[in-house]
Amino acid sequence: MTKSTPGVVHKPASHHAIDRSGALASLRAVFGNRLAQGEALCRQHANTLTWLPNQPPEAVVYPKSTSEVAQIVQIARDFNWPIIAFGAGTSLEGQLNAPQGGLSVDLSGMDNILNVNTQDLDCTVEAGVSRGQLNKYLRDTGLFFPVDPGTELATLGGMASTRASGTTAVRYGTMRENVLRMTVVMADGSTVRTSSRAKKSSAGYDLTKLIVGSEGTLGIITQLTLKLHGIPASIVAAVVAFSSLKGACDAVMAAIAQGLGLARIELLDPLQIEVLNRHAGLTLKPAPTLFLEFHGSTQATSEQVSQFKNIAFDAGAQTFEHAETHEERRVLWKARHNVFWAVKEAWPDKSVLVTDVCVPISRLAECVARTEEDLKSVGLTAPIVGHVGDGNFHAICIFDPNNKTEVTALKGFTQRLAVRAIEMDGTCTGEHGIGQGKKEFMAREHGDGLAVMRAIKQALDPQNILNPGKIIPGF
Amino acid sequence: MTKSTPGVVHKPASHHAIDRSGALASLRAVFGNRLAQGEALCRQHANTLTWLPNQPPEAVVYPKSTSEVAQIVQIARDFNWPIIAFGAGTSLEGQLNAPQGGLSVDLSGMDNILNVNTQDLDCTVEAGVSRGQLNKYLRDTGLFFPVDPGTELATLGGMASTRASGTTAVRYGTMRENVLRMTVVMADGSTVRTSSRAKKSSAGYDLTKLIVGSEGTLGIITQLTLKLHGIPASIVAAVVAFSSLKGACDAVMAAIAQGLGLARIELLDPLQIEVLNRHAGLTLKPAPTLFLEFHGSTQATSEQVSQFKNIAFDAGAQTFEHAETHEERRVLWKARHNVFWAVKEAWPDKSVLVTDVCVPISRLAECVARTEEDLKSVGLTAPIVGHVGDGNFHAICIFDPNNKTEVTALKGFTQRLAVRAIEMDGTCTGEHGIGQGKKEFMAREHGDGLAVMRAIKQALDPQNILNPGKIIPGF
Repeated sequence: MTKSTPGVVHKPASHHAIDRSGALASLRAVFGNRLAQGEALCRQHANTLTWLPNQPPEAVVYPKSTSEVAQIVQIARDFNWPIIAFGAGTSLEGQLNAPQGGLSVDLSGMDNILNVNTQDLDCTVEAGVSRGQLNKYLRDTGLFFPVDPGTELATLGGMASTRASGTTAVRYGTMRENVLRMTVVMADGSTVRTSSRAKKSSAGYDLTKLIVGSEGTLGIITQLTLKLHGIPASIVAAVVAFSSLKGACDAVMAAIAQGLGLARIELLDPLQIEVLNRHAGLTLKPAPTLFLEFHGSTQATSEQVSQFKNIAFDAGAQTFEHAETHEERRVLWKARHNVFWAVKEAWPDKSVLVTDVCVPISRLAECVARTEEDLKSVGLTAPIVGHVGDGNFHAICIFDPNNKTEVTALKGFTQRLAVRAIEMDGTCTGEHGIGQGKKEFMAREHGDGLAVMRAIKQALDPQNILNPGKIIPGF
Repeated sequence: MTKSTPGVVHKPASHHAIDRSGALASLRAVFGNRLAQGEALCRQHANTLTWLPNQPPEAVVYPKSTSEVAQIVQIARDFNWPIIAFGAGTSLEGQLNAPQGGLSVDLSGMDNILNVNTQDLDCTVEAGVSRGQLNKYLRDTGLFFPVDPGTELATLGGMASTRASGTTAVRYGTMRENVLRMTVVMADGSTVRTSSRAKKSSAGYDLTKLIVGSEGTLGIITQLTLKLHGIPASIVAAVVAFSSLKGACDAVMAAIAQGLGLARIELLDPLQIEVLNRHAGLTLKPAPTLFLEFHGSTQATSEQVSQFKNIAFDAGAQTFEHAETHEERRVLWKARHNVFWAVKEAWPDKSVLVTDVCVPISRLAECVARTEEDLKSVGLTAPIVGHVGDGNFHAICIFDPNNKTEVTALKGFTQRLAVRAIEMDGTCTGEHGIGQGKKEFMAREHGDGLAVMRAIKQALDPQNILNPGKIIPGF
């Protein structure tokens, strides 16, 4: 947590030798009224969703093409002015804040779907295309883009930037596995295509994977070629309540060890179930519960369901309910996706901080249990929900930002949690990214690897104009 | 192709300000008789398998631990002497040559399997462990490591270095997807663990993926944590002969579009079938042929086989034969893996050059057909075999290195093939790597991306001591 009071607007700290008015004049000449400086607009382009302070950029520009982004980078470079790429503003760790001031590059106008290649199962889109928009567009092709961070609004460029994942990663992978290549404007103004469209290559360093997850600190993604998947012939969902958290985690491990190919395996703790019941009018029993989804042929899903049922009852499941119709599934996953808003609704006067550790699955039950004990011991309320097939879970912590005791307790809790996950050979962030919020854990998690990251950042952005203040301490 | 005559030993070119005798004395003090300088041994530690000249290192050292590797790097750095990591010597593009002289770091003695975690489906091994050794060790666990470049001898460190793949990549991915993390000694002598053991992470730049495929030019891999997979309950193989190449490729595309989950799909052209018949005593019809393998439950594989049969006959298959027993499958895949040796045996007096382009699957039939025409037009003989589920295929070119006309024809052919693949939005190398053999195509394939790679190499190895002369032109 920073020293700042959440919610307070900060003045940008000073940055090298910046000539703002020169930069603004140059941008105005190219972009006219696609350059904006309104205070409200600038605030909307910084962190808005979480406990982190809102640190607005000084201006927002709306490019329409890769070459316009290259022009912007060139101007920012000439005037030594930070630039922060913006998609939909749904990131959770302050990735969009402008702690050193600068220009927000809003890519939402670059929302063209450039092509869909049904034979190669890929598509190429501009960075501002949202996942909802893409999947709507794909509907008639029988294909879909599976990575699902829980909001339809998230842009694919933003999702690549934070290496997002979500409920389907256990089967389809994260953005790491599903971005085939990108067009990226680098800090020197050059435009790079990070690879070919071949499914695999051994031709040099993997620039695609280097840029995915770099949160706009190494380059600005303007186009992406994404892997698509066939919509399965059969989709079956299930809700399974367990007598214990350990039972639920044991069932998940056994299913994965048997290669069951689950498409979604989400864990919700009893408090989260209660919150969801209230929010979505469900009547689930407050117990450690798995929400599951099986994808495949009719034969394959029915085989998977029956196998999982055996595993679950062996591990102490109490109830096992199918959701076979589209409508039943829709209600279930809508509820799951709305946990963040359900929690906000249940505690309307409180702020929310979402943790995001990820551990090897063999350590998951222990990590969740110790986290629950920790929460209890410091008197914090935090429903827990997790992508347990990946070992990733979130504690949605409720707190009053004006209550110093609570804030201090929360800070201690989030630090212990991150350290616990790292000591269990896990990571402080499974899918939300580092941004500003988790920079303090980078040295502990990466050791000497942090120096390697620093050297790469220094080499590719020597002026530190690309999203300064993010990921790497000291930049 | 270099200007050198294949097979001739080269004197190392001069390298910065090197103090060889100082380096050797320092190494001798630490490694005693684990430092060797015999000429034959040095030659064995350079390129031996392909048309590229053998450029031996000046000495070979055999470390036993990561810290010993770090000591070696420190000495090499102090004396400005190149170091080249060596696994089993099975790379095909001159990755092991020492064009600037230097020290081969033979990691074959680091062959401990450090642990197998059956709950997390991963294992940690030293870099010198071979894939054959690992899978033998895993046999009783019900797990296996799927990446299969066609030789049991290849070390896992070497496979990661070249981003190797092979016959099973269509289902299980390449080394890119199957290396979870590594321990790497960097050029500054520091030791980095490239990530945690969590299945996914958004914590900063993806160093694992950056090092995989970097061919020892960014760091020396000493340990790897690898993903494991459950041995499927049912494995069924099939051999399907088609009336045309296009029919075979169409069947592959249709199967992939339907998400059939094939574990192996290998294309062999009629000439390759003839060669294999002779080598392995098979009696297959010389036709464009697919070798396939299906993995899953008994129910799943029988469903897949019947689905693929329909697809294949729709696409013009002439015969469809199952291989259900372990022995039948073993014979089939042993033959497939031996294509390189079968070709060498069929033309004992000739040299062999194996191409390795990979294109989007929609372009595969066209690329193979044009390649066959090209071969015919220049009078070259080259059986073709490919991992067609990935769009990757190899022409195994037969030539006489002393016949200038043939060498010239071959050079023209390999250049046109690489350019053809790149123009089809593919890559000059799907799985063999760049090494020395494909450096000339890097600029065409990567454009401005090559400058990014160069900046990374410069930043992480400013003295250019790690495998100089590989991947990046000018280094």
